[in-house]
Order: sequence, then C-alpha cells, then structure tokens
Amino acid sequence: MSQESTSAAADIAKAAKAAFEASQLIDSSEKVKALREIRKELEADKDAILEANRADLEAAQKEVDAGRMSSSLLKRLDLNKGDKWDSMLQGITDVANLPDPNGIVSYASELDDGLELYRVSCPIGVLLVIFEARPEVVVNIASLAIKSGNAAILKGGKESNETTKLLSKAIQTALSKTQISSNYIQAIQTRAEVSAILQLDQYIDLVIPRGSNSLVRNIQNNTRIPVMGHADGLCSVYIDASADAKKAVRVAVDSKVDYPAACNAAETLILHESVLPTIWPDVAKALLAADVKLLCDPPSLAVLRALSPAPPSLSTHVEPSTPESYTTEHLSLTLSVLTVPSLSAAISHINAHSSHHTDCIVTEDEAASSTFCRGVDSAGTFVNASTRFADGFRYGFGTEVGISTGRIHARGPVGLDGLVTYKYMLRSKGEQGHVVGEFGTGEGKKQYKHRRIDASAVPF
Amino acid sequence: MSQESTSAAADIAKAAKAAFEASQLIDSSEKVKALREIRKELEADKDAILEANRADLEAAQKEVDAGRMSSSLLKRLDLNKGDKWDSMLQGITDVANLPDPNGIVSYASELDDGLELYRVSCPIGVLLVIFEARPEVVVNIASLAIKSGNAAILKGGKESNETTKLLSKAIQTALSKTQISSNYIQAIQTRAEVSAILQLDQYIDLVIPRGSNSLVRNIQNNTRIPVMGHADGLCSVYIDASADAKKAVRVAVDSKVDYPAACNAAETLILHESVLPTIWPDVAKALLAADVKLLCDPPSLAVLRALSPAPPSLSTHVEPSTPESYTTEHLSLTLSVLTVPSLSAAISHINAHSSHHTDCIVTEDEAASSTFCRGVDSAGTFVNASTRFADGFRYGFGTEVGISTGRIHARGPVGLDGLVTYKYMLRSKGEQGHVVGEFGTGEGKKQYKHRRIDASAVPF
Repeated sequence: MSQESTSAAADIAKAAKAAFEASQLIDSSEKVKALREIRKELEADKDAILEANRADLEAAQKEVDAGRMSSSLLKRLDLNKGDKWDSMLQGITDVANLPDPNGIVSYASELDDGLELYRVSCPIGVLLVIFEARPEVVVNIASLAIKSGNAAILKGGKESNETTKLLSKAIQTALSKTQISSNYIQAIQTRAEVSAILQLDQYIDLVIPRGSNSLVRNIQNNTRIPVMGHADGLCSVYIDASADAKKAVRVAVDSKVDYPAACNAAETLILHESVLPTIWPDVAKALLAADVKLLCDPPSLAVLRALSPAPPSLSTHVEPSTPESYTTEHLSLTLSVLTVPSLSAAISHINAHSSHHTDCIVTEDEAASSTFCRGVDSAGTFVNASTRFADGFRYGFGTEVGISTGRIHARGPVGLDGLVTYKYMLRSKGEQGHVVGEFGTGEGKKQYKHRRIDASAVPF
Repeated sequence: MSQESTSAAADIAKAAKAAFEASQLIDSSEKVKALREIRKELEADKDAILEANRADLEAAQKEVDAGRMSSSLLKRLDLNKGDKWDSMLQGITDVANLPDPNGIVSYASELDDGLELYRVSCPIGVLLVIFEARPEVVVNIASLAIKSGNAAILKGGKESNETTKLLSKAIQTALSKTQISSNYIQAIQTRAEVSAILQLDQYIDLVIPRGSNSLVRNIQNNTRIPVMGHADGLCSVYIDASADAKKAVRVAVDSKVDYPAACNAAETLILHESVLPTIWPDVAKALLAADVKLLCDPPSLAVLRALSPAPPSLSTHVEPSTPESYTTEHLSLTLSVLTVPSLSAAISHINAHSSHHTDCIVTEDEAASSTFCRGVDSAGTFVNASTRFADGFRYGFGTEVGISTGRIHARGPVGLDGLVTYKYMLRSKGEQGHVVGEFGTGEGKKQYKHRRIDASAVPF
C-alpha cells in the first residue's frame, strides 16, 4: 500500500476520533437538528445527486453489457427507482424521532453510604462501515451513527462512488451548520484506504462489514479492531412431528419465496420422518407451485416420486441433494430438503450446518417449541413464524445497521441499541470522598453495602 | 506448529463445542450442583494439589535464584499462602449462589396479534481464557463459565502447570458426576495449542486474554475470533480547581498506594493550575510520606522545590517528568504529575494518554463532575472516589473474569453478565402461524403493531 494512502487514512481516522471526542458533551437535541439539516441538504442537492447517480448507472450498464456485472446489482444502484429517494429521506426523520439510546442506566448500586455506581449506555466511538452497492446505505448508516453518538467512516461499493461522494458531501455540509464536526461522517473510496484504516486500532473502535462471508473473514484476518460481521444467512425451517399442516405450508413457502435473495430466507427444509406421508406432500406441492427447486434427500425424494398424480414440475424442479446442498446459501428459489428421525436430530443438524442466523420450528407442541428455541444456537429461534421476520424494522427497532451473524456485543438485527456500549460512573457524596483502604475484613474496616438504586438516568 | 498439536487442539475445541451444545437444555440447578461437586472434589484432593503446587514453587524458586523470574510472580503461585485456598473454595460457593444470568428478557414486543418477540440472555458458547501465573484463576474462571453456561478452555502460566493440571482434573472428575460433560472445562498447557486453537473460529466464540498489552495485541493479530482483552490500566486522578483539599489527598494517596501493582492504580496525577499553590503541596507531602516517587512537570516541580521547609525526600523522590512518563503504567510507587490550565485540557489529556480504564476527578462542582464523567472516554469515570474501586467484587458482581479494556460487549469489570449474549425468540400463537407476505403497504396488508410486552422471562 502506498505511503500516500496510509498517511491520508491516518488523517481521516484521527479526524474521526477527534470529532467523536468533541461530540461527547453535545446535547441530544443537536443530533436531531443535524439529522434535520441532512434531510434539508439532500433535498436541496437532489438534482445533482441524481445526476451523479445516472453517471454511476451508465458506467454500470457498460459493465453489465460486457458481462462483468449482474443486472440485479445494477438495479440496486438506482437511487431514483420507485420511492427509494423519498424512503431514504423519510428514514432520516424516522431515526431522528427514535429515543436516544445513550444515557440509559442498566445497573445502579450504592456501594457504601453516599457512594453511587451507575452503569450507563454511551457511544462506542468511531465506526468503520463497509458495505456493498446500494448508495442510500450511506444516508441510513450516517443517520444511525449520528443518532447513537458514534462518528463513522463509510466505504461503499465502487460502483456507486459518484453518488456516495455527493451524498457524503451533503451530509458534511449539513453537519457544518451544527455543533457536530463535519468530520463526524467521512466517506472513503478505495480498498487501499480501508486496508490502512484497519491497522489504526488506536482510532477505530468497531468495524462493521456488510457482505459475504469471505468479506467478513478477510477483514477479521487483517485487523485487531473488533468486527461485527453481517455475513451469510443459512436459515432453516423444521417441520416437527406435531406440526399443523396449514402452518407448515404457509411458513415454509413464505420463508423461501417472500424474498429469496435476503439473508433471512430459508435455505433448508428439515422434515421429521413422521410428516413424510402426511404434511410433506402438501408443502412440496405449494413450494413447486411457487417455482421452487427442491434438492431432496432419499426419503423425501421417494415420497415425491411416488405421488399420484405426479406434481407437474417433478422432472424439472426436484433433484437429489448432495452433502453440499446443506451448507449452501442458495439465495434463489432453491431449497435443500432433509429428513430426520427426531427433534434432537434436527437441532444437531442445524447447530452443525446453519449460520446461526435464524431457524424456525413448525409445531403444535409447547415442549418441542421450548426445546428447539433453547437448543438451537442461533440469533433467532422462531415458532410457527417465517424466518423472514428476522429484521430490524419488523422487530420494532425503526431501522437497522444490518443483521449481525456474530455472537458478541450485538446479535441478530442491529438497531441503535447495538451501536452503544456502556461506562461506569461512580460518585462519592461522602464528606471525605471514598477510598478503598477503608474497606476490608480487619478491625474498624467498612463493608460494601451494594444496595440497588432505582434509577433510569444518572442524576448528575 | 506441529501437525500433532494442531490435531490435538482441534479435538479439544470440538469437544468443547459439543459439550456446550449438549448443555443448552440442562437445568440451572444442575450447574449449581456441578459447582458444589467441584468444591467437594477439590477438598478431597487438597493434599495432592498442594503437593503439585509445592513442585511448581520449587521449580519457580530455582528460576528466581537464577534471576529469570521475579519474586512477586513466585508469591502469586503459592496456593497455600494465607487464606488463598479457603477463599478459592468460598468463591465457588459464592458464584453458585449468584442469580443465573441466562433467560432474562431485555426486550419483548408483540409484533402483531399473537406474534411475540423476546430478546433473552443466553450463553456465548466456548471461551478460550488465557491468563498468567495465579493457579486459582482456573477455579475462578471455571466457576464463572459453568454458572454462565459457557464451556471453557483454559491456559494458565507455564509456571503453574503442575498445579493447574490437578485443579483441572478435579474439576473434570466433579463434572463427570453431573449431567454436564467433563469436556465443559478443559485445560491446555502449551503455546502451540493456543496458537492452533486461535485458528478454530468455528468452535471458539470468544478469547479472553488477561495480561499485558502486548499479549492482548499479539492474540488480536493472530485470530479471527472476537477478543475481550484485559490489558493495562493507565489510570489518572484529576484535581479540579474546585477540589476539596482533604478529598484530594485521600483519593490521590489511595489511588496510588492501596495496591500499586493493580491495573486500577493511578499512574498520573493531573493538577488544575489553580491548585498548585493551594492543594498540591499537601497532596505531594502525603504521597512522599507514603514513599511515592513523583515525576513532575515544570510547574508542579517548581512548587515543590520552593516549599519551605523542603519535604525530607525531595532530593530522592522528586524528579522532572519526560513525555514518556505520561504513557507509562508504572505499576509501582511512582506517579507522573501534570499541570493543566482547564478541565477540558485535563479531559483531552486523559482521552489521548490514558488506557480508557478508569479516571477520577476530585471536585466540589457538580457541572465539572458531569462534564468529566461524560467527556472522559473511559470504562470508569469517578467523582471523589479512588480509582481502586474499579473491581467486580466492589461493584457488587460477586466476582469477576477480569477488567475489560475493550469497548465492545463488556467494558470495565466483567462479571457473569459479561459472559452472556442474547438471542431472539419469536412465537406465533396465530391460528395459521405468521408469514411476512401478509404485511406491507398494499391493500389488505397488515401493519406491524409493536406493542411492548411486560415480561422478565420467556413464557414458553
């Protein structure tokens, strides 16, 4: 990597840390004001931003024509498609209206008379967020970062460089009208800058990569900074012995078909062997009717091949599975099907093969629900509900940074709560202050009292 | 690294993950039983364990005699010193009696009629804990891991290998009398095994290194697994313009002198320039009387040199500071002293130089308290209280894994709460289950309701 990009990256990272530290004493209302200013600035710059977006689209079209880019990626670039522009602006207002996640006390205790301890939520610091093509993510993440009190450095896909440049410029112009430094949100354009910033753990507190498993692993391999990965979703639906047939059909179809390219779509259907002759044929017919291709293990395949009349797409849409079928995130209308002899076999299969994202049981049995939800080691364990519900908006967080596939700090859909940490504030109101040397087991020593304090905010 | 240690490490890691998964459905009472069995087993094996400990001590004594080990390290090895053995056993009972940190609901919402979402605490998975000499840490960490529902692989200092082998054996024997797998707690002995296990992110969920900054950084550089570092403490005490003189003396002395080798001892004293002629002489005299060596900046040095009569140890215990003084964790009776013109200069210095562990302000001014506690970006921000209070036992957590100097997941003293994560459980009680396709903005589509549910535990 060049000396130049290393030095430029260090300047960006230092400026972000300085902007973060300077923001610690700024009032919550100023963050709301900043978000309003950003919306105004974007509205004022709309024509120029959409023109830059057209330039990105034209360049991308050439890549698609040359076979070097998928047309689905091209579609994601378009900021003027449908209500995307308006939704992006509305998202800023929605985030502004959410409660401030900072300053909330989660533990408070009087350690001694007049010695009060508060565990209180506070921002993490400087975030480095790396994401793919969709340019509106710049605005989404900037809104979440500002609201949660974190500075952010953003790196979007290179396909949207022209658009993200103008979006970032608008955000910085808006910030310059507030008490928050315009360096609070910075955009970078190159991989060399990312590589350089990944080395700067003295300035960057958390890396959030949104993309493939290989992107996340590559970043984890190249930094000491904590990584909150948003990677693949290999989700499954298990149809239990006690499943209701109608629920099984509805949940299996919705989990697979509602949006197959999403990380919370189901990739594997697991069948208790007792439902093979009863529920499986109806589920299979419904999936085939929705154009789903089924990769079946021998027992589930045998049932379909024995159906009379045969489903119309049996020859085109039903195939034997391979061991790889059960570790593949299809992201399309393909579903792997596996038969198991028991609930515990289903749980073991999921724990060994799923990506610990979201897994669902269809059952009428309360004990099976409980066992599945506790035994499956995933961020989401669902009963009779589509895996597609795993989403920050649906969970009620207003919006989300993404869906964390890590287990540390924040798991599953990450909203504002996932972008804060906590600190401990300790205050002595004692006449002589408080010192540790006075406590202990010897004669005349004080004992800790540890009386819970009922407080939702720090009283000083 | 040899093929052999890589393969042995993989077996250990796999066995730990299997033990963790098998434990998911085991009742909380069984964990308490396991802790009681461990205490019994240790009591039964006391003679053999102390004999192994004597062997470690004899080997260590030779290292000390040869000048290859410090005598303070030797002292930490001794399991039979004072009430250490009894404290270790009592610690097991104390942890057993703490509330289970799992199964606690922190967010519950009805997304739609009959569609209930619960965010519930659950174990992280498999922990790899790397620590230094003190052999009783094996028992402390094993107790915390079992109580919090995490499997653990432990690597102690090589100086205590004989002792930790027998401690681990006793723990495994005790576990074999319960439903919990004896592989739940495993000990490893070599650095080669650590290196191999650091590559196994499919089995290990969190690494907890307790030691120096360089140990923590070295591990961060060599693994994709999240690291919760317990590294240096460069803590400071700031004496504000409005400080009470008596509190300043007490807090400064206790923070430095109570236990200078601890990570929560103060290393830097920061003086508002207005207290140089008023409070500083008394603080300096008290520190010098406690045998503290002062590394002073020019203004604080000038005041001490002008004192009449001169403090007796002025010539031996007072020296000019260097820039390095303010980035050094002395871990001894040495304290760096700096003068600043303002509260905000103190905050800037701390944010730039401290290790974000624990920092204290001595002040009578409520606004200064508030500014300091919010502006200083450390895990602990204290008012008129010694930095030495930063400790899991003192905070009321019963015990601690250590004091995290990271900002992600758990910060400051880490108790049982820091060893759990959460998962989302979603249950449909609807007659047809719940699917995402029914929700949206079109005609006949349902809207999310997001009604808060008042629940402290999952009702199924």
